[in-house]
Amino acid sequence: MAHNREGREGAQPILIVGSVAFDSVETPHGRAEMALGGSASYAGIAASYFAEPRLVGIVGDDFGEHHLRRLSEHGVDVRGIERAAGKTFHWRGRYHENMKDRDTLETSLNVFEHFDPTIPEVYRRTPYVLLGNIDPKLQFSVLDQAREPQFVAMDTMNFWINTSRDALLEVLKRIDLLFINDEEAMQLADQWSIVAAAEMLLRMGPKFVVIKRGEHGAVLFGPQLTLFVPAVLLPRVVDPTGAGDTFAGAFMGQLSRSGALDRAALGSALTWGTVMASFTVEAFSVDGISGLGADTIAERRKQLVEMVRY
Amino acid sequence: MAHNREGREGAQPILIVGSVAFDSVETPHGRAEMALGGSASYAGIAASYFAEPRLVGIVGDDFGEHHLRRLSEHGVDVRGIERAAGKTFHWRGRYHENMKDRDTLETSLNVFEHFDPTIPEVYRRTPYVLLGNIDPKLQFSVLDQAREPQFVAMDTMNFWINTSRDALLEVLKRIDLLFINDEEAMQLADQWSIVAAAEMLLRMGPKFVVIKRGEHGAVLFGPQLTLFVPAVLLPRVVDPTGAGDTFAGAFMGQLSRSGALDRAALGSALTWGTVMASFTVEAFSVDGISGLGADTIAERRKQLVEMVRY
Repeated sequence: MAHNREGREGAQPILIVGSVAFDSVETPHGRAEMALGGSASYAGIAASYFAEPRLVGIVGDDFGEHHLRRLSEHGVDVRGIERAAGKTFHWRGRYHENMKDRDTLETSLNVFEHFDPTIPEVYRRTPYVLLGNIDPKLQFSVLDQAREPQFVAMDTMNFWINTSRDALLEVLKRIDLLFINDEEAMQLADQWSIVAAAEMLLRMGPKFVVIKRGEHGAVLFGPQLTLFVPAVLLPRVVDPTGAGDTFAGAFMGQLSRSGALDRAALGSALTWGTVMASFTVEAFSVDGISGLGADTIAERRKQLVEMVRY
Repeated sequence: MAHNREGREGAQPILIVGSVAFDSVETPHGRAEMALGGSASYAGIAASYFAEPRLVGIVGDDFGEHHLRRLSEHGVDVRGIERAAGKTFHWRGRYHENMKDRDTLETSLNVFEHFDPTIPEVYRRTPYVLLGNIDPKLQFSVLDQAREPQFVAMDTMNFWINTSRDALLEVLKRIDLLFINDEEAMQLADQWSIVAAAEMLLRMGPKFVVIKRGEHGAVLFGPQLTLFVPAVLLPRVVDPTGAGDTFAGAFMGQLSRSGALDRAALGSALTWGTVMASFTVEAFSVDGISGLGADTIAERRKQLVEMVRY
């Protein structure tokens, strides 16, 4: 029985395609070994507080049932997680003292290397779609399988901008919203400011661009619309891994729950995304966003919104 | 005749002590040679849109009358600017492509080296005091000369934290508000987050701490109060020099104009400070904030505030 379904009234389900992985992370505040990670895991659990997430991903035969159960207990539909022979995607990294820069010590794609997402028949008419940060060719394939999605968002990163720019530009034409961080936005748009980058990106296809700036918040650009939300100010960050995926998952969850695309709906989605991401970075793996009470989340959002009420 | 006095109704004057200098600046967008600069010049002109600034500083015999006239035309009282034999303080620097990092190519203190601020008798009862970014010993001396100031703010920087920490801590005990940037706040408080740094700094004396984060906005911390204002999103920055001084000057001007210290007054001061700083960085020297119309400023503030209305 999911412990967070009460917040989902009126929400449409969300199809989330991305990685399901084991992360081994070392930060100045500690370490985690082979802990549940991956963009789909973070986005799925984050979205689960607002809407029903339907995950599509791939894991190896070393992926314990308790991990799937952890997702299910959050009301995440895991029927689209394929199990393949071999090992689960494993990433190992170490964060610097500033908690921003990090060194990748190991990336073992394992079964993820041959991931070719098949959307289960029961998922194909899901109205909201979140394409996690994966190969643009796979994102394209997901869109070919989806039937009349109502709202499609995607996330991406510098690796795909550098290696698959053309494919990425093709996906951009088919989506409603792009999540991207500030440096990558400027890189993709070949611009020196986020305003100029956002204007350029909006001409490439999406109706909305959300530029993520980590501890400095996020900005949404759309038609005659610019919305800014600061990050939650935290005295201590334990592990930043998954913050962006959490943000995207919660943002899409709230957008689905509101069912609208106006200033109020988009602003609200930004704040809930920001709040959920703040819980993620306070702990390793998905621990920070597991089993949160509705009151705890709402209280933090109240604090966030009060910072900009003057 | 000042062209901006209409916005000053109800405002008390502000004593501003700082540098008056010539800046020679090179950025990727151009260069300025021997242009009017210095913390008191920026803060003075910025404050002049909200209240009467009374400047205390020192210039050399090479400082043309037209520079003083430029300040006077903004309704800045320049009777406290001392003229000494020798050359005016000159700073020469070059900004990197990112417009944040900069190299100092020359710092000729000249007459500023022996600056020992004397507050003119007619200035001594000024209710609002802004201690610009100068030697803490001089800031201390100014406070000894001021009579019953109502509200005192100071700005500082890493140079003074490194070389005059003890004197700086003594000034902190006597002020109401500290302006400081994020890295310097963490350095002064010996903390790794701005929240922890602000908590520590509030215990050192000031009732309020405003942490400046450049293009990422500013955060005000006070008793049971945290306020955040994003920076104005600009497609193009020409020269960031003086942004912090402009912010402090306009912040203090608006605070004086409102005459209050509650959430609304402080939030409003943050937004006007941010807006004026955005004009400064769009041009070299004080050109961006010279002769601005009230409508131009108000329109930009409206855009800023709308970014956080959701």
